[in-house]
Amino acid sequence: MKLFHIITTIFFGAPIFSGPAFADALEGKSSPSEILARSSDGDWRSIPAENLIVLTLNSGEVLIALAPDVAPAHVANFTALANNGFYDGLSFYRVIDGFVAQGGDVFEERENGPAPLKAEFDAPLKDGVNFSPIPDADGYADRVGFHNSFPAGIDEDKKRTWLLHCAGALAMACDTQRDTAGAEFYFTLQPQRYLDRNLTVFGRVMRGMEHIQLLRRVSPPEEKDDDRGEEIVSMRTADRMAEPGNYELQILRTDTPLFAEYIESRRSRPEAFFYHRPGHVDVCAVPVPVRDRSSEGE
Amino acid sequence: MKLFHIITTIFFGAPIFSGPAFADALEGKSSPSEILARSSDGDWRSIPAENLIVLTLNSGEVLIALAPDVAPAHVANFTALANNGFYDGLSFYRVIDGFVAQGGDVFEERENGPAPLKAEFDAPLKDGVNFSPIPDADGYADRVGFHNSFPAGIDEDKKRTWLLHCAGALAMACDTQRDTAGAEFYFTLQPQRYLDRNLTVFGRVMRGMEHIQLLRRVSPPEEKDDDRGEEIVSMRTADRMAEPGNYELQILRTDTPLFAEYIESRRSRPEAFFYHRPGHVDVCAVPVPVRDRSSEGE
Repeated sequence: MKLFHIITTIFFGAPIFSGPAFADALEGKSSPSEILARSSDGDWRSIPAENLIVLTLNSGEVLIALAPDVAPAHVANFTALANNGFYDGLSFYRVIDGFVAQGGDVFEERENGPAPLKAEFDAPLKDGVNFSPIPDADGYADRVGFHNSFPAGIDEDKKRTWLLHCAGALAMACDTQRDTAGAEFYFTLQPQRYLDRNLTVFGRVMRGMEHIQLLRRVSPPEEKDDDRGEEIVSMRTADRMAEPGNYELQILRTDTPLFAEYIESRRSRPEAFFYHRPGHVDVCAVPVPVRDRSSEGE
Repeated sequence: MKLFHIITTIFFGAPIFSGPAFADALEGKSSPSEILARSSDGDWRSIPAENLIVLTLNSGEVLIALAPDVAPAHVANFTALANNGFYDGLSFYRVIDGFVAQGGDVFEERENGPAPLKAEFDAPLKDGVNFSPIPDADGYADRVGFHNSFPAGIDEDKKRTWLLHCAGALAMACDTQRDTAGAEFYFTLQPQRYLDRNLTVFGRVMRGMEHIQLLRRVSPPEEKDDDRGEEIVSMRTADRMAEPGNYELQILRTDTPLFAEYIESRRSRPEAFFYHRPGHVDVCAVPVPVRDRSSEGE
């Protein structure tokens, strides 16, 4: 029975290890999964409940970590809108396959919408900022790596940093003029790196990305009676949920020796399965594992 | 009304042009959409009906172009299985979000299944092969570009070429041993370039990728009564369909001056929308437009 033909990774969670492919790591080197299996508690970081959005859809919950140190005004604005119930009952009205799922208040019918936001396309790269580069060259940035577990780029001359449009990025839409973002947000369904620093990325999906990927495809409605897409049942930070203890997520730290070894193993792929070891890793193709500590289940 | 906040591209079709973002190309340079708008019939190539698979799902049809010049044995095997009705009534039994959708005969219950296939991880790069490189460096291959409109890589020393695991690639699964592929196939839901040359890619989705992306997520069944995922209603080459005239697709040629200009514009993004012009393009992020000539509608 050929159940396990190719290696399984879950993009937004821990890899699962299927079949014999991982059994024969060559040259005594550990596979990515073996490295993760020996992580200790110090290799993980809790995601603060006030920076974790719970987006409830009819199909399930999506958990999104916010990045207030990179885009503080966007995070403050989005958090306030969510916790005021602004998004409840709105919809994902623009879902373009292979591109983005965009939601919000398409006809600007809600009162108490936000004032336009100043762009936060990038942020100062302060001394001592927690940026861990990967060794591989990247076409879109001087250097890429991870900033507090978020995929990020830096401009070394200008000393700026920004989050990347990898799949599952949360960003704020804007008009063709800068500083016009407000309430309309999108998730990238695929990497869209050419948008980096042209829109403000301020978070990333940690759990439930399948619910975003499975949203019904829909073009933006032109008339109020047109299909507005699937409903946003509610959106709140985890600390405002009825049972905040259900949302105790931890993400793998990216500033540790263990993570550096994990990156190296994803670059070299020592498992016997690989005839052609890539010797390279694309920053958007690195799953940063997330674990659920809500019930000590994992 | 903020309908059109960010630029729209459909990954597997022609970009659609929404809102004012494309109105102000800078420096007299054309945007990707403007370049495509002046394509002539000679810039397009028909996809032969015998190399175009029609995969019928309950949600709709998916059209997949095959690449017999890169993986002839895989194409011959897959075409024969499809046209013998082998896949009809089977299912997508392994659909992992952000990774792959795998289908076929999970418990090997069908008779007349294939003998194991020899791997065709890469193919000779013959003199005069229609490979059009893009200028940008790539981490996974000496050089990347397009081979008869398929994203492809080459090894310049070994004179080999292969198709890439971009989103929408069709490849054959195999066990951990080489030369064990047969009937179990998968589509990549995201780029998975680390799998290049470790499995045989032999085609790519041209139309209907949303039906693949929307397949119900499911883990491989362990018992015969377990959920086997969504059904493959039928699979045939277009020339075997009741109305083959419904499947007359053309794809943009990638060996033309127009395509080179299109790539250059995707690298530089001259539109006024862009504050940070990328100056780079990832080969998997280039939509190769497809048009439907079935009814002269497009």
